Amino acid sequence: METIKEDSFILVYRDRRKKWLVRPVDTPKLHTHLGILDCTALVGKPFGTVASTTMNDSVYILKPTLEDIVMKFARRTQVIYPKDLAMIIMHCGIHSGSRVFEAGTGSGAATATFAYMVAPEGHVYSYDMNPEFQDVARKNLEKFGLMGSVTLKGKDAKEGIEEEGLDAALVDMGDPWELVPNVKKALAPSGMMAAICPTMNQAEKLTEKMKDEGFATVETIEVLVRNLEARLGMTRPSQFMVAHTCYVTFGRKTI
Amino acid sequence: METIKEDSFILVYRDRRKKWLVRPVDTPKLHTHLGILDCTALVGKPFGTVASTTMNDSVYILKPTLEDIVMKFARRTQVIYPKDLAMIIMHCGIHSGSRVFEAGTGSGAATATFAYMVAPEGHVYSYDMNPEFQDVARKNLEKFGLMGSVTLKGKDAKEGIEEEGLDAALVDMGDPWELVPNVKKALAPSGMMAAICPTMNQAEKLTEKMKDEGFATVETIEVLVRNLEARLGMTRPSQFMVAHTCYVTFGRKTI
Amino acid sequence: METIKEDSFILVYRDRRKKWLVRPVDTPKLHTHLGILDCTALVGKPFGTVASTTMNDSVYILKPTLEDIVMKFARRTQVIYPKDLAMIIMHCGIHSGSRVFEAGTGSGAATATFAYMVAPEGHVYSYDMNPEFQDVARKNLEKFGLMGSVTLKGKDAKEGIEEEGLDAALVDMGDPWELVPNVKKALAPSGMMAAICPTMNQAEKLTEKMKDEGFATVETIEVLVRNLEARLGMTRPSQFMVAHTCYVTFGRKTI
Amino acid sequence: METIKEDSFILVYRDRRKKWLVRPVDTPKLHTHLGILDCTALVGKPFGTVASTTMNDSVYILKPTLEDIVMKFARRTQVIYPKDLAMIIMHCGIHSGSRVFEAGTGSGAATATFAYMVAPEGHVYSYDMNPEFQDVARKNLEKFGLMGSVTLKGKDAKEGIEEEGLDAALVDMGDPWELVPNVKKALAPSGMMAAICPTMNQAEKLTEKMKDEGFATVETIEVLVRNLEARLGMTRPSQFMVAHTCYVTFGRKTI
Repeated sequence: METIKEDSFILVYRDRRKKWLVRPVDTPKLHTHLGILDCTALVGKPFGTVASTTMNDSVYILKPTLEDIVMKFARRTQVIYPKDLAMIIMHCGIHSGSRVFEAGTGSGAATATFAYMVAPEGHVYSYDMNPEFQDVARKNLEKFGLMGSVTLKGKDAKEGIEEEGLDAALVDMGDPWELVPNVKKALAPSGMMAAICPTMNQAEKLTEKMKDEGFATVETIEVLVRNLEARLGMTRPSQFMVAHTCYVTFGRKTI
Repeated sequence: METIKEDSFILVYRDRRKKWLVRPVDTPKLHTHLGILDCTALVGKPFGTVASTTMNDSVYILKPTLEDIVMKFARRTQVIYPKDLAMIIMHCGIHSGSRVFEAGTGSGAATATFAYMVAPEGHVYSYDMNPEFQDVARKNLEKFGLMGSVTLKGKDAKEGIEEEGLDAALVDMGDPWELVPNVKKALAPSGMMAAICPTMNQAEKLTEKMKDEGFATVETIEVLVRNLEARLGMTRPSQFMVAHTCYVTFGRKTI
Repeated sequence: METIKEDSFILVYRDRRKKWLVRPVDTPKLHTHLGILDCTALVGKPFGTVASTTMNDSVYILKPTLEDIVMKFARRTQVIYPKDLAMIIMHCGIHSGSRVFEAGTGSGAATATFAYMVAPEGHVYSYDMNPEFQDVARKNLEKFGLMGSVTLKGKDAKEGIEEEGLDAALVDMGDPWELVPNVKKALAPSGMMAAICPTMNQAEKLTEKMKDEGFATVETIEVLVRNLEARLGMTRPSQFMVAHTCYVTFGRKTI
Repeated sequence: METIKEDSFILVYRDRRKKWLVRPVDTPKLHTHLGILDCTALVGKPFGTVASTTMNDSVYILKPTLEDIVMKFARRTQVIYPKDLAMIIMHCGIHSGSRVFEAGTGSGAATATFAYMVAPEGHVYSYDMNPEFQDVARKNLEKFGLMGSVTLKGKDAKEGIEEEGLDAALVDMGDPWELVPNVKKALAPSGMMAAICPTMNQAEKLTEKMKDEGFATVETIEVLVRNLEARLGMTRPSQFMVAHTCYVTFGRKTI
């Protein structure tokens, strides 16, 4: 049974809005408005245990999932939502062994997700011109032990992509159509390109460009996740929802 | 560059509605209403090529993705949709090395998806009482080379789950609440249970049971995918959509 | 109690997919695959009664609502959906006494809805260049007794709108932005313009034009209606839905 | 041209979030964080004019629509949303001359909407046991000149509905199924019953009861309104939306 170590990440969970992702080594005592939690005392215990704060409030001590980790990156900058990443992974078939390109590292949320999925046999190549973003991303990836499957490059992918024969590519830039020829060159035949398009206009312009460049199965989707408040005799959808984050456009390289 | 072999699966793609998943070895000549395609002649060519039928119709010869493969299973029986599987993989953090339990093999669509994701280091254990379903699933999995990461069991999971310390479990049965105690026993602490609930009544009853059994972070979602018809100056969402397949309920084992 | 007359429209209702809107005078015997219904025999009976066909199949004999009537128009040409008309009526505050302009009569579905709502004190002025459409619309409106509140004009509204001081205007044309100055002139100050935009490009272009012309509260909405299949212990949303018909853009004239 | 009077309601509109519904007679000077607006000075001017605050901020002076008025009621208590009211009016065919029953007056938002629609020839009968709600509703209705078409009754509709031959009925109570027999008695044959159901369980229970009592065309819908942020070259759906307010169940009385 896996036990908590000094440098394990733990998800301290009270409810959907009150949760913290910490390591005992960094945060021996977690101060919350529900009292203080002694994280050091959790070392050696199994994940999934229930702990008490100094104010006798119960919290769950959980092993973070990929999604918990990725959403944590969101504290620093805007990230691609898990719902959109999930569909990209599925639709591109990204898994252990995949070699994946990314343009627009940002805070590394997609990079981390891909790294997690392609390990141990694959690799992620992520380009970003902005050195600040790459620093944030590197720290995030190192903290969660994911840098071993990632190469970060402080380059402009518009000036060329150095890799070849890639299985999939994600473009998260304001002008994704500018990158289509380079991505096409870098992909293996039949490889999948995906791009994040916050606006309909971007999706429209990108679609035209991908079709012009001979991509097949070009399509654009929007993913909506509704929460259902399931309670005995009182079940209803949640009143509010995130209605739009981005469109995702997909297509496969042909030759 | 990966080339097509006698026993490679190829996706012959004309448009969203006209596509075929075949192997040259099984289908030397593919007969369609757009003419005949000589699949044997494709052997040795790279994926991503364009081919012509005897009626001079162009089709793309693509390497199938996980999603292409999974949707193929749907021809024989109802399957869990890729949109729902994508969210289950992301939310459970299923990847190479994960050990995953499944109750309700069905035609093996979820089994195949999990096998693809957990390979080469993990494993999927899938239970189904119905020997016909398991035969269909076994043939599907073998055909796509995924049986190496799967153990199929012709057992009723309600009578006990033989595995322990599992990372994730998917329950796709009409009465998922009946399985909660056994799944709890089989999961590693902090492991994630997911369940497919076509109706809100199932989600409601399951939620109550999971909370009673001490599962944490219990929540239910519904995933909606809208297609955007992106065309220059004429962009609009698709007129029709699959509005509901199922709810998915998640929760993590605590101890 | 209102009874069925020779020339009353009756909705013969079996289920959501099998329903007919007829008059005894036109259709003394209604032939269906469920047998023949003697409509003449219904004269003198109250609405809401249950009748039998010659094959002993039960059908409900209902008084048609506005929505039943409007959807009937759809048999001949594309109509604005009731869900969109409902929001236009509410948002524009169309009711008895309102004077409403319409550009693009089509088959008269919106015209009929507005006529029904503005009677007995208001009036609808509907322009359409296409004499065939106006003939269809006139017949539809006359059949349902709604022409008394309507003036149909075979004119191009781009060349001028003859009415003034109107309370609301609906534009259902491919290039609604071309009509904004004329509509502005025809509306009473603070009057509401609404326009049907199937694509986002139309909504975008129209929004710019309306803002340029000084319209206030300019906004665009999309209305989605989901059906819930409510059955004891098996309640779920419908599997398919109409996901997009059009965007509707609104704005109020300022001076 | 309609001009503003001392006792006219005016909508002072800056943007979607900053708007006020006032009368010069009650609010000679409107104090806002954008400066003070002299409402008395607006008397005699036409609606649709632009005015300035003491801080030189421009606001539009608009004539309120039905929807502006109804949403104003929401300040005091929860109201049925305009999107849901719109669909009820359309689906029930409520218009001038309709005689409408309501159980659960609340703050009078639905009552006001129906009154506005049935005037001058129809009437609304609204029952509520709670005298506080009826006082609030009466004041709201009087303020907007709608009481002439409304009778408020401080009665429990479960003990009987005094009206007969009604065209439509709206039930907004926690246990709408309890009222089905009385509503059936009060409706004209073929008359439409509508009910507000926040939860799926209520819709389910009500549907069963309505079918048992012989209602036809029983169906339940959920209305979703998405805003489109239409801006030149940057058009996208709004990021957040009201995802659920209630289900609405409809059915027609048969005999």
